[in-house]
Amino acid sequence: MGRRYDTISFLTDYGNVDEFVGVVKSVIRDIAAHVMVIDLTHEVPPFDIRAGSLTLARTITYVPSGVVLAVVDPAVGTDRRCIAIEVADGDGVLVGPDNGLLAPAVAMAGGAGRCVELTNAEYHLEAPGATFAGRDIFAPVAAHLCNGVDLYDVGERIEPDALMPGVIPLPREENGVLIAEVLWVDRFGNCQLNVGPDDVAGLGDTIKITVGETSGAGISRVTRRSDTFFGLGVGALGLVIDSYGMLALALDRRSAAEELRIGAHDQVVLEAVTDDNAGPLTSPVNLRIGR
Amino acid sequence: MGRRYDTISFLTDYGNVDEFVGVVKSVIRDIAAHVMVIDLTHEVPPFDIRAGSLTLARTITYVPSGVVLAVVDPAVGTDRRCIAIEVADGDGVLVGPDNGLLAPAVAMAGGAGRCVELTNAEYHLEAPGATFAGRDIFAPVAAHLCNGVDLYDVGERIEPDALMPGVIPLPREENGVLIAEVLWVDRFGNCQLNVGPDDVAGLGDTIKITVGETSGAGISRVTRRSDTFFGLGVGALGLVIDSYGMLALALDRRSAAEELRIGAHDQVVLEAVTDDNAGPLTSPVNLRIGR
Amino acid sequence: MGRRYDTISFLTDYGNVDEFVGVVKSVIRDIAAHVMVIDLTHEVPPFDIRAGSLTLARTITYVPSGVVLAVVDPAVGTDRRCIAIEVADGDGVLVGPDNGLLAPAVAMAGGAGRCVELTNAEYHLEAPGATFAGRDIFAPVAAHLCNGVDLYDVGERIEPDALMPGVIPLPREENGVLIAEVLWVDRFGNCQLNVGPDDVAGLGDTIKITVGETSGAGISRVTRRSDTFFGLGVGALGLVIDSYGMLALALDRRSAAEELRIGAHDQVVLEAVTDDNAGPLTSPVNLRIGR
Repeated sequence: MGRRYDTISFLTDYGNVDEFVGVVKSVIRDIAAHVMVIDLTHEVPPFDIRAGSLTLARTITYVPSGVVLAVVDPAVGTDRRCIAIEVADGDGVLVGPDNGLLAPAVAMAGGAGRCVELTNAEYHLEAPGATFAGRDIFAPVAAHLCNGVDLYDVGERIEPDALMPGVIPLPREENGVLIAEVLWVDRFGNCQLNVGPDDVAGLGDTIKITVGETSGAGISRVTRRSDTFFGLGVGALGLVIDSYGMLALALDRRSAAEELRIGAHDQVVLEAVTDDNAGPLTSPVNLRIGR
Repeated sequence: MGRRYDTISFLTDYGNVDEFVGVVKSVIRDIAAHVMVIDLTHEVPPFDIRAGSLTLARTITYVPSGVVLAVVDPAVGTDRRCIAIEVADGDGVLVGPDNGLLAPAVAMAGGAGRCVELTNAEYHLEAPGATFAGRDIFAPVAAHLCNGVDLYDVGERIEPDALMPGVIPLPREENGVLIAEVLWVDRFGNCQLNVGPDDVAGLGDTIKITVGETSGAGISRVTRRSDTFFGLGVGALGLVIDSYGMLALALDRRSAAEELRIGAHDQVVLEAVTDDNAGPLTSPVNLRIGR
Repeated sequence: MGRRYDTISFLTDYGNVDEFVGVVKSVIRDIAAHVMVIDLTHEVPPFDIRAGSLTLARTITYVPSGVVLAVVDPAVGTDRRCIAIEVADGDGVLVGPDNGLLAPAVAMAGGAGRCVELTNAEYHLEAPGATFAGRDIFAPVAAHLCNGVDLYDVGERIEPDALMPGVIPLPREENGVLIAEVLWVDRFGNCQLNVGPDDVAGLGDTIKITVGETSGAGISRVTRRSDTFFGLGVGALGLVIDSYGMLALALDRRSAAEELRIGAHDQVVLEAVTDDNAGPLTSPVNLRIGR
């Protein structure tokens, strides 16, 4: 027997409208009644592996010891592998499809320990159809792992090197400017970038940002950095160190994403403010037609 | 004393925005602290008894032993009855309004055992108004049943025959075609039909489907059957055996419901492909004006 | 050591899309694994302290003994205080920001007992940023209180008089009419007013209501009172005593809010029906241009 767990942290793109989440929890309850399931979120956009993997990477530091069950699985039913990966000397096991979804969280948790492909059908449910692996494969395996079934009993050993890697976009420097990307827009419209405070240390206290350049209609703003939304002042776009320690474009009590009309994946260029490119700190939106 | 239960599976049309679900769980926690509540869904469309009953019927095979609390109750406060129905020799008890909501799930679970109307006000909460039976009648009764109160203590015995029947639309054959109906559109746009693989066994591997005929602007497609979404190929509408073993109109990583502009209740005609009605498998949408 | 608790009732404006709620629950699970968290709602409109405080006041009668964790916190990271307030001789402790959010619920629960500002950082998490007090301050404090840490250990004593008051709008009489306000529109479109049955006892069984007067295009209706939605009859707007004992504008199986195009904060004037102002009970909408 392996180690027992009593918490399953659960993330999917199933949404909260259909009964998918409830059915998965029912399956877990049936097999491992002692387990508490914590919903991380089920509103990952449908099929969006990148968004799911970033959410998982943000939260992995906070999830309790136990199993992490993550399902964003556009290729369900094909020969993409179903996997389980131990991290942190077995403090945690991540269960999900081998499509890059788990990889960034595994890296954040210190890298993969033992890995298996979930080939042992003894721990799966019989299924009337092949389209709901969350219910039929991932959930029962997660529950059995909580019951102390050893990782090597739920499937065949695979090498961590053989796992599908995740995709985390890195910022790049080009001609003295930092080309970043929006990783995540939260409920409040804050736009988390793929840069931390160290990445912009050389740019000074006020930073010029430009969005929408690729579409030909860019918006530029001079932004101030602040530790709080409130500190930005009324109506002024700024760069806040967000709750995960990354820089986020933000407005106090308003949506920066709406103001700038940007979303996840969009490019944001950051550069030092010079005499040539400076504008007033709280200027209105500057719509440049072309460049 | 009756049997004790430790799980309540919970389905409503309360939504996840107001505090209704939280208040019901608070009531349950107060009366039966040992119970875990599993949310099946609370996003049944408001007042939609049919959608609620179908969701319950789909999930009943998976819910753990215990109480099922289901509330879609447009006639709350009137003389419609509040009921509890035992199924599976007391492995489960369904609690809710007697309006057809519970009936299909009861049938799926093997039929009704003991039934009562919830007439014993000793197990209800005193209420400031008559409009929230979920909080004031159904939840406290469900919790007391979990505590081991016997079914016949929460109300007066009624005959299963006297229960309001559910409405499950059946497909029908007419002039050699199968006239089906969309039961459910899920988050991913898959359209579950009221037909299973056996119903279309005589139609061959490719099947012609037509939607929108009643509105005069029908869309026809020749569809292929597949066990997976992926197997449909890019952009090709198909018929997949869904996770409940029913046929669903589906597209790989896209919404079949949006593509065909159909929703629950809409009619879908299925017929064999013949020399006269065949088209290319991955043809664009064919808009027929009139017939 | 103080008293131990095993339930945290949890209300926020975090929404159910991002992982905020899941992360807070993870933090609680890590510190106090025995605690069950009951979600009251997380769909308070962003930054809407009033809506959050009204929801909390409605639900406080039903929440189990334990900690209430409530976070609607537009000024997060500033010097607004983080507080905890005992109510009902320690049966409950409310934890949240000192911005009026908790005040109406505290009043409903009989008033504040011991109060502290959450100044003891020993019970907080180290945070990579200052913008997520729910995760870094409120949740760990709530969990430690559940573990039996005494209130006076998590911070410095403050006087109840020094707490930010809540804002509950009161109806007022003016020239023989009652000027009320919509407190809350629920999922079904029922519009809860800030008046109870006693407030309108002198107006008779049918009451004339007028909305939209301030915008110059008022809608007037003669409404009947009913204990149930069904009792209103088809298509007739009425006044129902809602599940919290307040009066609500309602339609049977339809949205009164949509019909009248009103929402929270909107004014509703109630007056007795006289020979001069009476109209048919089930009249269509009467659009008065100007007055």
